[in-house]
Amino acid sequence: MKYPLHLLKLIDVLKKLPGVGSKSAERFAFEMIGWPKERLDEMADIIKATSSQLEHCEECGSLIDIQACPFCSKASERAHSLCIVSQPRDVFAIEATREFSGLYHVLGALLSPIDGIGPERLRLHKLKERLHTCRIEEVVIALDSTLEGDATALFLRQELNTLNIPVSRLAFGLPMGSSLDYVDGGTLARALHARSRF
Amino acid sequence: MKYPLHLLKLIDVLKKLPGVGSKSAERFAFEMIGWPKERLDEMADIIKATSSQLEHCEECGSLIDIQACPFCSKASERAHSLCIVSQPRDVFAIEATREFSGLYHVLGALLSPIDGIGPERLRLHKLKERLHTCRIEEVVIALDSTLEGDATALFLRQELNTLNIPVSRLAFGLPMGSSLDYVDGGTLARALHARSRF
Repeated sequence: MKYPLHLLKLIDVLKKLPGVGSKSAERFAFEMIGWPKERLDEMADIIKATSSQLEHCEECGSLIDIQACPFCSKASERAHSLCIVSQPRDVFAIEATREFSGLYHVLGALLSPIDGIGPERLRLHKLKERLHTCRIEEVVIALDSTLEGDATALFLRQELNTLNIPVSRLAFGLPMGSSLDYVDGGTLARALHARSRF
Repeated sequence: MKYPLHLLKLIDVLKKLPGVGSKSAERFAFEMIGWPKERLDEMADIIKATSSQLEHCEECGSLIDIQACPFCSKASERAHSLCIVSQPRDVFAIEATREFSGLYHVLGALLSPIDGIGPERLRLHKLKERLHTCRIEEVVIALDSTLEGDATALFLRQELNTLNIPVSRLAFGLPMGSSLDYVDGGTLARALHARSRF
């Protein structure tokens, strides 16, 4: 005895969400079946409108409403530095720290030869153009500390070398609140290497 | 700096899924933003159609497509026994065991005075009517082993007492593959109490 056809369809489409397997999708679906029609319609409308309501800023690649990009529209105030990130989500994470007040540049990808992602995917031409026209004084590389993040950071450093703009990268070390027992060897080694006077 | 308005809306609506908090909803939303329009539309359409495509069988309360209920349409073959469950989902879980081939009756709720759910919510009138018209020979109570499940089972036993139909309830004991170390005291006590000759 299988589920009704529409229920199978609903489960299938929910399984496309990241980290959602059959069990979670079933749980979602059975919960949603109990929802009133209005709530289902609201969810469907919002999902449907996503492709038209959200877009990427043509300048920095960040995610924006139909209105102007909140960063690039203040380019003159923010041009003192530019932070390079891999995806739109990172922009909001960095903004939330309130430690950075410059412009952003979203690469959209990280170098990964095994997935066929080479330098041509990094919007490098646009980055160089912006560094020039916005008169950026400092570049902060805020990429993951993964193989792909490291490779991309090294590549960017090389590419930006000739432009005579100081380039820095996020520090590596112990995450806040962590105990040495639970930190992996790689993190510990990097934290030790980057130790600072106390 | 907040997320764009539509992104906030999308996150909010995804947070209504069971077990999905802000972090998971953000993860879903950022993934969905990267989806092609066709996939977003497909998901939206399926969600929207849920209220019209799925309904509850008027007889047994199980979840059905627009077509006839696969259980009640074979009432004559299946009438030897009737299994009482609390929600439509349980019907499919029991069917999947292939250990039961009777009819089902979905209560739709469990007794829970604290949530204001009393006997009037249990569709008891319909249950008694079906027991009579379908000439059920055995009733199996398949309710959760929770406070509400136990209360409802006891109540049902009392109500069905006068009908002269044998009533049984799912066995309680160790779950398969579990080690005694990890089983809670209540389960162990019930398994001990219900021990059988080996």
